Amino acid sequence: MENGAKRVEEEEEEQVVNPWEVSSKNKIDYDKLIDQFGCQRLDQSFVDRVFRLTGRSPHIFLRRNVFFAHNRDLNEILDAYERGDKFYLYTGRGPSSEALHLGHLIPFMFTKYLQEAFKVPLVIQLTDDEKCMWKNLTVEESKRLARENAKDIIACGFDVSRTFIFSDFDYVGGAFYENMVRVAKCVTYNKAVGIFGFTGEDHIGKISFPPVQAVPSFPSSFPHLFSGNDKLRCLIPCAIDQDPYFRMTRDVAPRLGYKKPALIESSFFPALQGVSGKMNAGDPNSAIYVTDSPKEIKNKVNKYAFSGGQDSVENHRKYGANLEVDIPFKYLSFFLEYDEELEHIRKEYGSGRMLTGEVKKRLIDVLTVLVERHRAARAAVTDEMVDAFMAVRPLPNMFN
Amino acid sequence: MENGAKRVEEEEEEQVVNPWEVSSKNKIDYDKLIDQFGCQRLDQSFVDRVFRLTGRSPHIFLRRNVFFAHNRDLNEILDAYERGDKFYLYTGRGPSSEALHLGHLIPFMFTKYLQEAFKVPLVIQLTDDEKCMWKNLTVEESKRLARENAKDIIACGFDVSRTFIFSDFDYVGGAFYENMVRVAKCVTYNKAVGIFGFTGEDHIGKISFPPVQAVPSFPSSFPHLFSGNDKLRCLIPCAIDQDPYFRMTRDVAPRLGYKKPALIESSFFPALQGVSGKMNAGDPNSAIYVTDSPKEIKNKVNKYAFSGGQDSVENHRKYGANLEVDIPFKYLSFFLEYDEELEHIRKEYGSGRMLTGEVKKRLIDVLTVLVERHRAARAAVTDEMVDAFMAVRPLPNMFN
Repeated sequence: MENGAKRVEEEEEEQVVNPWEVSSKNKIDYDKLIDQFGCQRLDQSFVDRVFRLTGRSPHIFLRRNVFFAHNRDLNEILDAYERGDKFYLYTGRGPSSEALHLGHLIPFMFTKYLQEAFKVPLVIQLTDDEKCMWKNLTVEESKRLARENAKDIIACGFDVSRTFIFSDFDYVGGAFYENMVRVAKCVTYNKAVGIFGFTGEDHIGKISFPPVQAVPSFPSSFPHLFSGNDKLRCLIPCAIDQDPYFRMTRDVAPRLGYKKPALIESSFFPALQGVSGKMNAGDPNSAIYVTDSPKEIKNKVNKYAFSGGQDSVENHRKYGANLEVDIPFKYLSFFLEYDEELEHIRKEYGSGRMLTGEVKKRLIDVLTVLVERHRAARAAVTDEMVDAFMAVRPLPNMFN
Repeated sequence: MENGAKRVEEEEEEQVVNPWEVSSKNKIDYDKLIDQFGCQRLDQSFVDRVFRLTGRSPHIFLRRNVFFAHNRDLNEILDAYERGDKFYLYTGRGPSSEALHLGHLIPFMFTKYLQEAFKVPLVIQLTDDEKCMWKNLTVEESKRLARENAKDIIACGFDVSRTFIFSDFDYVGGAFYENMVRVAKCVTYNKAVGIFGFTGEDHIGKISFPPVQAVPSFPSSFPHLFSGNDKLRCLIPCAIDQDPYFRMTRDVAPRLGYKKPALIESSFFPALQGVSGKMNAGDPNSAIYVTDSPKEIKNKVNKYAFSGGQDSVENHRKYGANLEVDIPFKYLSFFLEYDEELEHIRKEYGSGRMLTGEVKKRLIDVLTVLVERHRAARAAVTDEMVDAFMAVRPLPNMFN
């Protein structure tokens, strides 16, 4: 546990969810997380409202509860949107590895949908400084990975006229740094220990970092984008393990005269081996990477995807698959576009009429198409496009 | 003690010397500081060497031991200088107040001499971020004070073709920020507590700050000045209370492949009221400010300058003045240009032939000239000149 991060221990169960570690002996208990982090579950009325406001079918990640938690301010943002006030989106990535896996794509796929549906500007932070400090990476390697990852992010289809991608090593300074100092002044070391679980053996770079991830929540950190728009609200789509950063941010915002950012948070995309925790970047067989070939995808799914099916066909026909732990079904529920087909598989596989092999075959098809589409899109991303997304510039088409 | 800063307690004596507090029940014990900070006293052979190397009379702050301590690397820098290798100077100021007092001018007067004598470039850091975090100042007020203070610094006579002045709020970013991260990675929280005495109730802005003051010691923090000159040595003239920052810097430098900066450190300029500690910015009567009128100078010296003279003229004639505690004589030893005249006063006043009133009169003359000269020089500093010194630019005349 590199960070001495705070653990939640209760009875025999133990789960750790923080920006640097997600693990659990059993399934992640999201109800407990929601309680611990002080957020709320998204309900059907919210999904209906998004449909009404945007005039388009809500993303499957909304319909299927992948993005499942939020806080009060999200409704305020939608209230304001309904009255004609726009907002901006903020998401990010810590560029710790060259190749992204499917779990990494989820916030970006969802953010792209939000950007299109609400027609709002978006800032994407690449925390190369964080990864340089947490992983044993040089500044140069972190910056290189940030740029490589930017290509995968751009390949998700963002609109360059509404999107500013920046790396911390490139962008920290000026108004952004001023806000870092303002935030840092509001957080004692003891408070940071309470939120992030730092210990005395952690280096002061780690302790300095939370304000860096906090300040993109404030429009004044981006004078070239939001000058004169200091009251613009910020909506952050992210995985729920990032919540500590934004609890701190939301706590500090009013003391600086800033609006609190709203969050919409996803559950974790599980490892092929099972549903406890999110994927482990250290084990290539725990995840499908966007660089995997069709053959690798087929092999990984067939060999490693944990099945909730029974140990014999006879038992399977009798008891059906345990969908709560079945990875092929979980993965389909993230990526299979058609609700009816997913419902069909749920019924047939859950009752035992469909076998694991059939479900895995369908998943292999779905993932192969997804990965091949991403690979083609990424191959088309030029260095000039990266420069264009990362240029410090006004966004000409922000709110149209 | 706002910082929980580390105190050195021994027997009945107590002295506190750190970047945020200098105080002592008795006279500051510099031998103890030198021991504690691991530096060495400058000796006459060093002063002679500077004379030989520069071909000009060493500054009175050297001759009179105002700058009294250094470390091994200073000799290395002079060895290299003798072989034809230049170095650069780095000093700075925390802009916490509008008006500077005489104590604030000392490092700048000395640095100006070093710049002229060695013909080397100079970077001057205005730590507006530090003052924003330590004092109850807004970002905007800290930036304003930095610019005001820059005018006083420029008025000391620096050569714009060899001098880069920057404020942290303006300049942090890019290569400078990269070095901040590199330094922060090398310093654990426990280590920072050992050096700076932080407590859990200190905000994380304070804990983040030491790397900001460390990295101007590394030429790669200034690519517009020293690109391709990564091995250039750095010499830091400063008051000895800044030593903790540079002990940390010197500790970290080799781990980053950087040269250690060398230090040349001054004792403190005493308050009018006496020799324990340096001046208290909170009490306007404890110091002569560069904004004081001749009348104010006369009044302050006559009314507040602690005298080592005896309580009656009779006793004074008999025992002489105690020069160890006499503030008028101390001040003259900082600012009276002529060695012979100072020697004369030392003898005559110390033996009781000269009275406190006469010494104070001479001091008033000296300070009035000094302050009036500074006031005139500062009045001539335009906003355009400040912009010129603070422009991020190559220095055309760095090593000539």
